[in-house]
Amino acid sequence: MSSNGTSFLEKVLSIVKDERSEEVPLIRFVHPKELEAKLDLDVTEGVNDKQLEERVNEILHYSVKTHKTTFRNQLFCAPDPYGLAGAWITEAFNTSQYTFEVAPAFTLIELKILDHVLKLFGIPNGDGIFAPGGSIAIMYGIVAARFKKFPEIKSKGMKSLPEMVIFTSEDSHYSITKAAHWLGFGTDQVRRIPVNSKGQMIIQKLDESIRNDLDMGRCPIFVNGMAGTTVLGSIDDIEAVADVCQKYGIWMHVDACWGGSLMMSPKYRTKLKGIERANSISWNPHKMMGAPFQCSMILIDEKGLLHKANSAAANYLFQQDKFYDVSYDTGDKSVQCGRKIDAFKLWVMWKARGDLGLGQLADRTMATAEFCLKTVANRPGFKLVSDELQCPNICFWYIPKFMRDKEQDKQWWECMHKVTPKIKELLVLSSRLMVSYTPLRLHKNFFRIAFQFHPAVDEPHIIDMLRAIEESGETITMCMLENTP
Amino acid sequence: MSSNGTSFLEKVLSIVKDERSEEVPLIRFVHPKELEAKLDLDVTEGVNDKQLEERVNEILHYSVKTHKTTFRNQLFCAPDPYGLAGAWITEAFNTSQYTFEVAPAFTLIELKILDHVLKLFGIPNGDGIFAPGGSIAIMYGIVAARFKKFPEIKSKGMKSLPEMVIFTSEDSHYSITKAAHWLGFGTDQVRRIPVNSKGQMIIQKLDESIRNDLDMGRCPIFVNGMAGTTVLGSIDDIEAVADVCQKYGIWMHVDACWGGSLMMSPKYRTKLKGIERANSISWNPHKMMGAPFQCSMILIDEKGLLHKANSAAANYLFQQDKFYDVSYDTGDKSVQCGRKIDAFKLWVMWKARGDLGLGQLADRTMATAEFCLKTVANRPGFKLVSDELQCPNICFWYIPKFMRDKEQDKQWWECMHKVTPKIKELLVLSSRLMVSYTPLRLHKNFFRIAFQFHPAVDEPHIIDMLRAIEESGETITMCMLENTP
Repeated sequence: MSSNGTSFLEKVLSIVKDERSEEVPLIRFVHPKELEAKLDLDVTEGVNDKQLEERVNEILHYSVKTHKTTFRNQLFCAPDPYGLAGAWITEAFNTSQYTFEVAPAFTLIELKILDHVLKLFGIPNGDGIFAPGGSIAIMYGIVAARFKKFPEIKSKGMKSLPEMVIFTSEDSHYSITKAAHWLGFGTDQVRRIPVNSKGQMIIQKLDESIRNDLDMGRCPIFVNGMAGTTVLGSIDDIEAVADVCQKYGIWMHVDACWGGSLMMSPKYRTKLKGIERANSISWNPHKMMGAPFQCSMILIDEKGLLHKANSAAANYLFQQDKFYDVSYDTGDKSVQCGRKIDAFKLWVMWKARGDLGLGQLADRTMATAEFCLKTVANRPGFKLVSDELQCPNICFWYIPKFMRDKEQDKQWWECMHKVTPKIKELLVLSSRLMVSYTPLRLHKNFFRIAFQFHPAVDEPHIIDMLRAIEESGETITMCMLENTP
Repeated sequence: MSSNGTSFLEKVLSIVKDERSEEVPLIRFVHPKELEAKLDLDVTEGVNDKQLEERVNEILHYSVKTHKTTFRNQLFCAPDPYGLAGAWITEAFNTSQYTFEVAPAFTLIELKILDHVLKLFGIPNGDGIFAPGGSIAIMYGIVAARFKKFPEIKSKGMKSLPEMVIFTSEDSHYSITKAAHWLGFGTDQVRRIPVNSKGQMIIQKLDESIRNDLDMGRCPIFVNGMAGTTVLGSIDDIEAVADVCQKYGIWMHVDACWGGSLMMSPKYRTKLKGIERANSISWNPHKMMGAPFQCSMILIDEKGLLHKANSAAANYLFQQDKFYDVSYDTGDKSVQCGRKIDAFKLWVMWKARGDLGLGQLADRTMATAEFCLKTVANRPGFKLVSDELQCPNICFWYIPKFMRDKEQDKQWWECMHKVTPKIKELLVLSSRLMVSYTPLRLHKNFFRIAFQFHPAVDEPHIIDMLRAIEESGETITMCMLENTP
């Protein structure tokens, strides 16, 4: 049996430090069933602190070190150390973001950060709330749009309302599909509008699609413009999306979960021009900006709407006869009851760095991405999927030497489709680099490297990444050729 | 401007320690607008580490010390120190629970804990997932029930389906109302079944209500039985609820967000008898069990259903051509994309204490609650709302001396309705105790003290709490009498 745990808690800093040292590899990959056999995960019997420390160390030994510069596998990466400090304090102060009485300072912090962000995005008179991730954030947007158009939805449900339709870019995130299912629209009611070669929604197609649904007597309820698609990092022509929404009187959402962090930079925020005309915006500072996972918010251009749409006035929690100003009990805006304090870690980061500091990190991120883009464009064997830098995503194939002088026919591309995951496999097994790959529309499997406000990624790191891909590409080629009869 | 933040991060332990010392009061209450004026929350300009530390200390100075035994305001309280250690590690290892590749050990831990919990709840062949709170957890249950009955919901939406109805106890949590709105049922389609004096759903009323909806041609889709209501802690007759669900072939959910932790105790788990017949169960270890906020899960009795209901097969994330067994990429079961690792902190607690240790904490919690119940029952001036201990909730009024010999008529109760919040106010302002109060059905405002697996709460603490209420009750009486002309 165990002690009371307090002394174990004090060991955490050193455990974390050990596992974050320079020498520790990015990943020690072991296949699932083998890893299961290696770890002692059963919880039936309690263990003492020493044994617990050993077990925890084993678990961390096999965990991915996402703080390393070679972790390029997702849109999130290393947490900002200030953000991490904020997250640890939040955990220690264990409370919920719903009433002023249990979270007085944290409530003011959420309001303050939202206020600052609303101004930054150009909707100073709006409202917002932190949500557990971008998928829930976009659901808030859809729920608000639907309620605004048909307030009776809250009591009557979808059955009595007209057939409602959601419009989004073909390259947008799958969360909108899940939202359409959960919220009762059905995925058939999602129109995925084709994109151009840069991954941007074709505005004319959006217009046609809306007109078509109107002609069929359906009700277009929500248009989702993208400020940073997941793969290519594409940013729609937001002004043009806004014009279409205005023309037909449809709620305009901008999914800025990824690209919203560019708003920090006076230089790059022009890429999102028109976002101030959105009715709702989702943004994940836990992605590009490096807030600890997870940190996500929904912004709405109308004060009070979130509350009207979502409130249930539970009288055990939101008593109206409290002794303080209960307008500071903000929890009834939320679909959650208990809600984690996700605002504080963001506040600590922001307070430490200021608008200027964060803007510099954004500029640096884009400069790093630009360097990567140019290097990939000019490096033999690399082929860009798109040569335009919108968000800091670089997408490319690595073409092994034996494929370079061949005709790029169907068979060649099938081979490329298999080569990319093989390179990734070797990169992981050798712990050199974790990088994302994916197919997209007609494109066969390619790599995506995305950059975040990671202070440590510089030009030599990028060269190292590309070299790792090259070397793995040639190694797997040899293996493949040897295995060919 | 700031340093790189790493040295600030190392200060967190001491900041947290200072704010958790014995001498620090539970709360230093300041009204919202005054607190706003006291704190420097603006983030426009960055500050150096020393200034940041000062600002953070100010914020924590005015934050509630939820780890104190006198924090009885919510169903959560002090985090388990082992759980907190797990939470800090989770934050430092910043990753998402969706694919094995970015969370290898954490994926196995979630699977292991779910497996252990499913066995504990008597549905060993089921499935589950961690969710950001009980409100989202119950939504998972409703979505699963709806999909099981009408798989076409996913593509077609609610409009083409029959009118579906949800049944729940009158005393159940408001999250089911919010879920009915979000998921497109509409709150009119929620039947709130009356409860008996102990707060338990009247089974005959449930049966009648279902029959009535069937007669009207509607489709009963979901029955929610309670294992621990928010206020009284009532546990429905779960066997009887299961019988009704079986009779009509309706999905049975048990909201065990609060009471589920009693399953840890061989002695008390019999209170939840019949829960093994549920199709879905929601449970929040962050409540009674003291896991750091938030830690919540949904359990489903059918393997594969969560995946079928929620999957969208995004090919940038859930590639099927990965080099490892992709059945360990569990994220497509989720409505979230990125998802916090909430399983690890629970695992650390459980590994440290084992089934036996957690069972002992559950027994101790109930013994404490029983002592509190008996003391309140016998103490002059206190009046219990219900004298049966179901979950460790004790609900009561404190009757100030001047009211004790009066007739308990309408006016008397109106006075009591005002007295309770006034006592609470004084308790908070004097930092002696934070305790919840609420009205319930016909009952006027009363106090609720709930107990958790908090190692430090003992009998003297309970006497102190009741004394604090008494003394505040008499002090406010004096003020009220003085102010009466």
